[in-house]
Amino acid sequence: MSLASQSFAEKLGPREGTEHDGVKRFKTPYLIYLGDVELTGYAKTGLGLIEWRRNLCVGQCRTPQCTIDSGLPDMSIEEAARSGVGSFVIGVAPAGGYIPENWLQDLVKAARAGLDIISGMHARLTDFPEIVEAALESGAQLFDVRTPPSNLPLGTGAKRSGKRLLTVGTDCAVGKKYTALAIEKEIQARRWNVDFRATGQTGVMIAGAGFAIDCVVADFLSGAAEMISPGAAEDHWDIIEGQGALSHPSFAGVSLGLLHGSQPDALVLCHDPTRVYNLGTERKQPFPLHGLRETIEANLLMARRVNPEARFVGMSVNTSQLTATEVPALFERFERETGLPVIDPIKDGAKVIVDRIEKEFPL
Amino acid sequence: MSLASQSFAEKLGPREGTEHDGVKRFKTPYLIYLGDVELTGYAKTGLGLIEWRRNLCVGQCRTPQCTIDSGLPDMSIEEAARSGVGSFVIGVAPAGGYIPENWLQDLVKAARAGLDIISGMHARLTDFPEIVEAALESGAQLFDVRTPPSNLPLGTGAKRSGKRLLTVGTDCAVGKKYTALAIEKEIQARRWNVDFRATGQTGVMIAGAGFAIDCVVADFLSGAAEMISPGAAEDHWDIIEGQGALSHPSFAGVSLGLLHGSQPDALVLCHDPTRVYNLGTERKQPFPLHGLRETIEANLLMARRVNPEARFVGMSVNTSQLTATEVPALFERFERETGLPVIDPIKDGAKVIVDRIEKEFPL
Repeated sequence: MSLASQSFAEKLGPREGTEHDGVKRFKTPYLIYLGDVELTGYAKTGLGLIEWRRNLCVGQCRTPQCTIDSGLPDMSIEEAARSGVGSFVIGVAPAGGYIPENWLQDLVKAARAGLDIISGMHARLTDFPEIVEAALESGAQLFDVRTPPSNLPLGTGAKRSGKRLLTVGTDCAVGKKYTALAIEKEIQARRWNVDFRATGQTGVMIAGAGFAIDCVVADFLSGAAEMISPGAAEDHWDIIEGQGALSHPSFAGVSLGLLHGSQPDALVLCHDPTRVYNLGTERKQPFPLHGLRETIEANLLMARRVNPEARFVGMSVNTSQLTATEVPALFERFERETGLPVIDPIKDGAKVIVDRIEKEFPL
Repeated sequence: MSLASQSFAEKLGPREGTEHDGVKRFKTPYLIYLGDVELTGYAKTGLGLIEWRRNLCVGQCRTPQCTIDSGLPDMSIEEAARSGVGSFVIGVAPAGGYIPENWLQDLVKAARAGLDIISGMHARLTDFPEIVEAALESGAQLFDVRTPPSNLPLGTGAKRSGKRLLTVGTDCAVGKKYTALAIEKEIQARRWNVDFRATGQTGVMIAGAGFAIDCVVADFLSGAAEMISPGAAEDHWDIIEGQGALSHPSFAGVSLGLLHGSQPDALVLCHDPTRVYNLGTERKQPFPLHGLRETIEANLLMARRVNPEARFVGMSVNTSQLTATEVPALFERFERETGLPVIDPIKDGAKVIVDRIEKEFPL
């Protein structure tokens, strides 16, 4: 961040949570910006947000070149400002990380119109003087989800009140965010006290607060995780989005810092049965996925350092690559192997896992 | 870093190592700056550097207020420049993190005289326009040891050639750096091919290259560790300074990223028998230290993910708080408990550990 924009950022002041009081929530409702993208893959963030928080998304904003349609009504920045939209959410990743000139014009226009801007891009909003200037004029706030708060505490491991569940996995990208959201949804349906706590950029958009934990300075990993799921009422559940895997040679440090800082009471194991090697290791040196029991034991060994009562309450399987006939026998085998209720969060929801939580943690 | 100083830093260009080729080495010999400090505690970095690299340190530079004497001859910046000193090493931490005006004047003078400046302070040299300007004029380079290279790779876990030893511990601050240096010294005495690889700020000064690994963005932890101990000749040993502890609720993420990225063949367990709780946890929630076997097993479980042959070759004990009569019985107990040769690196050196390495890894 530039010295100049640092002081701007201080004036804008959107990321200044203090220890354990959480971070500022985004202003709702949202206008989802899809820019000029032509491939669904580039719009994952926006589409995920719409899927899980449809009620908060009032419109989509697209350039004429955009070929994606999220199903939301089209809405211009001017209309959005008039109709009381709170935030302009960048729902797309620019191809190659480079921000096109016409996007920049839209961002400046949104900031000038007084809409807060929420971005998960690598490039920081505060690195663009035009955006910063427009935001200072209108009073809009700029949220860079990949820029953690500057005042992260060191982790302490001190016991916090309330209950916490963390999704962990045999690998990255096996459905940890989706599983956490499905569990949150089921708990909400039962009218318990619950919050989804995000640790990745799309999750943060859905949660409406937070930052990507893999962007923090390593020393503050567990401190950041402690901040993400602060102390709460004894009957409150935080459902925390996991990251990476303890067995992944690229990301295990992040996974352990998050595990320690989350001090989970309950863990859910996420798995993709078609995954053979840890994602990203295939080319240079393939790392065969660890087994289910091995993954459970490693996570319990580490989790119990901060919470001796930590236990697994379910398993979540990504079945998108399987035929319907394969699934029942596979789930039966996983249930036998782990002793846990097994779900496909997309097809089944998280009912049986929340049943298990209810049994294991009676209120 | 400011946009302005970022471009300065790019011009200065001191931290631009590329993947696995290590990082630029500091220019020797060193003039050690002690500023105006009055307490030995504030001069730990400089005194550690002098202890382990006496032959590279030609003088100390002090203001009249300084009450510490490192034993090196006093030398002014002008004399140092005339006599071919390579780097001006800030060997002190400013009390309270604040850089006094008279230090700043000395730093500018050193940069103007063409001495490279090496700093482990929290405040970055490149954040002071006066220093940057002086360095640009003279061609001096500025090394901020707490600022990692900007081009860190993600870790891959791919097997590298050469041998690696990592010191790990039951806690932080139990002698991991000192132990690594004692092992390096003993290996050098046997004329094997060896490098000390630093991961903390004082270690980096001693190694003459590198950066503090706890300052990297979490996603790049194991990638940074892979860069710190690059592939080498099959008979070459990297002796890597460990950080934190897998059982420490504040720092375990850093420890695991470093463990995975180092892919050690050999591990040495470091321990302070007077430590009851993990350092820093005493006040809020004391974490009783894990046992020796427990620590060994957790480290092996994690290390074997990246190197199935990883094994412990020794134990290093900080006996500074013990009476001489207590030590023999304690060491005997530790040897029985771990099956490892046990040393006090300060009193004994690392002979018996290197004997064990020689036996376990015949060339």
